[in-house]
Amino acid sequence: MNDKVLVSVVMPNEKDLEVMNESLVTLRSLGISCEVTVISAHRAPHQMIEYIKNAKERGIEVIIATAKGAAHLPGMIAAFTTLPVIAVPLKSPLLDGLDSILSMLQMPDGVPVATVSVNGARNAAILAAQILGLHHDNISVELERLKMRLSSEVEEQAANIKSKSFTQ
Amino acid sequence: MNDKVLVSVVMPNEKDLEVMNESLVTLRSLGISCEVTVISAHRAPHQMIEYIKNAKERGIEVIIATAKGAAHLPGMIAAFTTLPVIAVPLKSPLLDGLDSILSMLQMPDGVPVATVSVNGARNAAILAAQILGLHHDNISVELERLKMRLSSEVEEQAANIKSKSFTQ
Amino acid sequence: MNDKVLVSVVMPNEKDLEVMNESLVTLRSLGISCEVTVISAHRAPHQMIEYIKNAKERGIEVIIATAKGAAHLPGMIAAFTTLPVIAVPLKSPLLDGLDSILSMLQMPDGVPVATVSVNGARNAAILAAQILGLHHDNISVELERLKMRLSSEVEEQAANIKSKSFTQ
Amino acid sequence: MNDKVLVSVVMPNEKDLEVMNESLVTLRSLGISCEVTVISAHRAPHQMIEYIKNAKERGIEVIIATAKGAAHLPGMIAAFTTLPVIAVPLKSPLLDGLDSILSMLQMPDGVPVATVSVNGARNAAILAAQILGLHHDNISVELERLKMRLSSEVEEQAANIKSKSFTQ
Amino acid sequence: MNDKVLVSVVMPNEKDLEVMNESLVTLRSLGISCEVTVISAHRAPHQMIEYIKNAKERGIEVIIATAKGAAHLPGMIAAFTTLPVIAVPLKSPLLDGLDSILSMLQMPDGVPVATVSVNGARNAAILAAQILGLHHDNISVELERLKMRLSSEVEEQAANIKSKSFTQ
Amino acid sequence: MNDKVLVSVVMPNEKDLEVMNESLVTLRSLGISCEVTVISAHRAPHQMIEYIKNAKERGIEVIIATAKGAAHLPGMIAAFTTLPVIAVPLKSPLLDGLDSILSMLQMPDGVPVATVSVNGARNAAILAAQILGLHHDNISVELERLKMRLSSEVEEQAANIKSKSFTQ
Amino acid sequence: MNDKVLVSVVMPNEKDLEVMNESLVTLRSLGISCEVTVISAHRAPHQMIEYIKNAKERGIEVIIATAKGAAHLPGMIAAFTTLPVIAVPLKSPLLDGLDSILSMLQMPDGVPVATVSVNGARNAAILAAQILGLHHDNISVELERLKMRLSSEVEEQAANIKSKSFTQ
Amino acid sequence: MNDKVLVSVVMPNEKDLEVMNESLVTLRSLGISCEVTVISAHRAPHQMIEYIKNAKERGIEVIIATAKGAAHLPGMIAAFTTLPVIAVPLKSPLLDGLDSILSMLQMPDGVPVATVSVNGARNAAILAAQILGLHHDNISVELERLKMRLSSEVEEQAANIKSKSFTQ
Repeated sequence: MNDKVLVSVVMPNEKDLEVMNESLVTLRSLGISCEVTVISAHRAPHQMIEYIKNAKERGIEVIIATAKGAAHLPGMIAAFTTLPVIAVPLKSPLLDGLDSILSMLQMPDGVPVATVSVNGARNAAILAAQILGLHHDNISVELERLKMRLSSEVEEQAANIKSKSFTQ
Repeated sequence: MNDKVLVSVVMPNEKDLEVMNESLVTLRSLGISCEVTVISAHRAPHQMIEYIKNAKERGIEVIIATAKGAAHLPGMIAAFTTLPVIAVPLKSPLLDGLDSILSMLQMPDGVPVATVSVNGARNAAILAAQILGLHHDNISVELERLKMRLSSEVEEQAANIKSKSFTQ
Repeated sequence: MNDKVLVSVVMPNEKDLEVMNESLVTLRSLGISCEVTVISAHRAPHQMIEYIKNAKERGIEVIIATAKGAAHLPGMIAAFTTLPVIAVPLKSPLLDGLDSILSMLQMPDGVPVATVSVNGARNAAILAAQILGLHHDNISVELERLKMRLSSEVEEQAANIKSKSFTQ
Repeated sequence: MNDKVLVSVVMPNEKDLEVMNESLVTLRSLGISCEVTVISAHRAPHQMIEYIKNAKERGIEVIIATAKGAAHLPGMIAAFTTLPVIAVPLKSPLLDGLDSILSMLQMPDGVPVATVSVNGARNAAILAAQILGLHHDNISVELERLKMRLSSEVEEQAANIKSKSFTQ
Repeated sequence: MNDKVLVSVVMPNEKDLEVMNESLVTLRSLGISCEVTVISAHRAPHQMIEYIKNAKERGIEVIIATAKGAAHLPGMIAAFTTLPVIAVPLKSPLLDGLDSILSMLQMPDGVPVATVSVNGARNAAILAAQILGLHHDNISVELERLKMRLSSEVEEQAANIKSKSFTQ
Repeated sequence: MNDKVLVSVVMPNEKDLEVMNESLVTLRSLGISCEVTVISAHRAPHQMIEYIKNAKERGIEVIIATAKGAAHLPGMIAAFTTLPVIAVPLKSPLLDGLDSILSMLQMPDGVPVATVSVNGARNAAILAAQILGLHHDNISVELERLKMRLSSEVEEQAANIKSKSFTQ
Repeated sequence: MNDKVLVSVVMPNEKDLEVMNESLVTLRSLGISCEVTVISAHRAPHQMIEYIKNAKERGIEVIIATAKGAAHLPGMIAAFTTLPVIAVPLKSPLLDGLDSILSMLQMPDGVPVATVSVNGARNAAILAAQILGLHHDNISVELERLKMRLSSEVEEQAANIKSKSFTQ
Repeated sequence: MNDKVLVSVVMPNEKDLEVMNESLVTLRSLGISCEVTVISAHRAPHQMIEYIKNAKERGIEVIIATAKGAAHLPGMIAAFTTLPVIAVPLKSPLLDGLDSILSMLQMPDGVPVATVSVNGARNAAILAAQILGLHHDNISVELERLKMRLSSEVEEQAANIKSKSFTQ
């Protein structure tokens, strides 16, 4: 485990932790220290700006931001930093989160965010690890291990399903 | 015409004036002075914040903001002011602007914007006039005249179409 | 609290009060008196017309109207008045209310309504307050307080989430 | 040709005649007299109400109404009459007219309209003829002839395409 | 009550009666006799064709047909008759029935169906009554009564909601 | 029952068997032997490639593949074989599986898959049987029987619904 | 080239040949004889039924059917045959053919069609070849050649693009 | 300019360079060397696998991949590497590229890609730069300069628009 906090996971509402906790768990499983907080582009914009600047100074390298609906948070973070920002669109009450998706995906030229799947908290963490793995060798090693675990899980399931369907 | 500038019309790109010019024309036709500028939540966020604060101090009462795609501008303006913000979703290359619509419409609790139709620059101006008409009597008078003009236009078209279809 | 009733909250079905009650609660919390009733553009159009005219004469300044599906109520109210009309699209059984959204949003040139988010009863009330706050100073003060409360809530949640994730 | 005018074709804008002219042509080809006019639920609602009442008194039996976007016209006509109303959603700049479709289709319980396809001016006329054909025998005869013509056209095309593809 | 059966209500699956029963109830409340059966364009096409021809011979004047998904039934009925066909798109597991809507709405030139709202069984019955009311005077009278009942219900709800919100 | 295994049913997750079991049941009811396994284009791509090649060598004639979301499995199988691949889009948390549908349906020129309905496990099996029936006569016979059963079921339901609605 | 006609390509309008000609060209390039005609489920249903029965008797093994909008043709063909039916949704004026897609894709249990991409005339032909290749060895050989050609084309393009971008 | 090639830009069709050229231009403007090639997951999968492995060995750090429709390329690259993969959904003939978006965005747990906007070739390059900037200081400096240029452009446009609207 790196002692230095490399990833910041932010959300506009503490309830979003239900989904985003998977980012924290996955980051830790890959040996990456992270911090988590609540910031809001709409309800507390000055604090948001303050937070982003400090984060970079404190050594944060990747920011994972989530939101739903108008979902401005990841895009506004990207407006105030040159760090890579990973955006997790949350499932919302409108069209399963299509509003969240489009508000994140369609960022204007010059200010990208890296959007992952709806509620994709785990994939956001793995993407952060892939970015960090380019210059943190221990993280790169963890990613290779993860890839092997994924492959093994598929093989186990293949074994399971054959026995299941024999007995059906 | 009020001499005092009451409405600010803002857009993230000078090309958006092609659509938004209709707001300027309509506001003037209703006797309302306005100012127009380019501000961007993503590419020049500090100037945006500065502009919003000054606007209110200079007596602006309603802000009409447009954007397309991720379309954060109206929502971010609303984050920094308690003035009413009217949002005009621009037609975009994705689903005719459904991205612009949803990014504006689905603002979180506490920070509303008033969304009008896609490319609805004229309706944004009329909505601004309806808001101002509550305490500016001359604007209220203009709105009543507009309503009569709309009704007359329908009657003229009804007359036209009958003569057209007789001769077809 | 203003004694004068400034806002009218209307809906086509008494069941809609489940959602729209949040408008009433929010308006009162901002010191704004309101009235509430059931009117229908489709099932009782003559009463609707009567109501709209009387509302203006009785001093109503802003109308909040909701509907779902074909959702004509806000638009038809706007056809009969020059007061600002705020439209709340209700979540419907089709595409989470996309029908309600589009029927409100896409009003034709000349007759705008101010659309907020799906089931956005609270934001409709705050938007009404922003409109009224331009010439009712006490409401303007309440809005500034609301903005501070929103910001404080975010800070509280930020504190909460840090303690939560330490102990996870 | 019936001399009595049985069908009214109405639209909110004289430009809509470009699409709706196909209704007039088809009705006449089926021996049905019709009238055409411009009425608007939003811009001239009082004239609309007047027109609907007179139409029924003058012997109109079916109303074909078109609109685009918020597209309230057919639904508002249905609010003021018990005659069958056929609704033609016009192709609009948003999602090819999905706004027009949903605003017509999703009428509330108690006040139906009969929606046909986007820009379906010809089918609206044929549906009107099917309704009238139940008690106007000459129209019923024309409909049987139309059905045979449709079938013959398919056979002609089948002959054409075979010769075409032989020579390709 | 007319003794003669004037309306046929058909569906591809007996389970659809859960939704379509509202058509039967409404037709009876308007004094219209109807028959109900299961027919399928895909699974029993020959019986479907037989049924449609017999229906017309037996004096059926309007056919209400429902379906979901590919939802070909109303369109295929219209292919085999010149009677007006009312199509009720059923809510389906895909996009709340958008598949059912589009498969019915977008019928090709020459073969219309009259589409009502998703699960709009009651409105289908009222539309049938409006069609029949043109030449069955007793049905026309029932429709006027229905319109008054709808209007009274709105007034009752308006009374209810005022007392409710006083006591909240 | 053919002893030779002719159809392979594959899925990226053993949980998908809940839906896909219907394929197994239907294939067996049509006298077709099949095998089932878990393979993944994303998590175990090398095993997937191995499996596809072996499948063809072992005499598999049709592959039924399912997936959800990005849903690459059927398309990637088609990249590695010239056997017909039937794709079953699974209902997903986003827009009821519209993501699964489009990822399968919109395969590029040169590499088709045969897409059936969302969760259409039964229809995938019947389509496989239709393909196999062209050169396996016993399967062709079973398909004719199935078609008769479908038709009988409709007739039974027609009988049921009449008795039901008499007694309502 | 097989002399026997194995594939039937059908469309409801001779204009559809513009898109579907690609099916004919591709089938011929794979050594498969086909016939082409115009049939319509809605405008000439009796001829359609006649055609389908004769097709099977004449030795047709696969039917490629196209349509747009309500797009019933492939599904209705499947209702009358146990041959595999490949459905090509045509791009339509509504949502780029989403209506065509859903009307084909969402066929009810028991009556599948094999849907390919919008305007996917070429892929429909290749899918037909994959089905026929199972028992026509010459077609199977052609498919292997096609797969190699596809791969070579990619390699050529890779060579091209490098030279292009060196000189930019 | 780094001499070492750090970014690979890949596409399934040489025509896609029209859109993706903007990635090359932007990367070079930020001092980043890149290579470009054509690879295809569907038509040349073995070459694709070969390319990905070699790319990593040759020192590539970030892969930008584009595709349209089923759009499997970025996801399949991610299946074979732990490098960060940036996915650019291309505008397609279906719903402006919604198919491309969903096929990229909705990658399954364990195998993320970083999706940017439709045709977002420039933003893909900037995101690549943000990732590389974490450990390549010269790139980090270029990004700060870019952010200042973006802000200056907004100010210039603001100056332009004022002079334009004065003279209108």
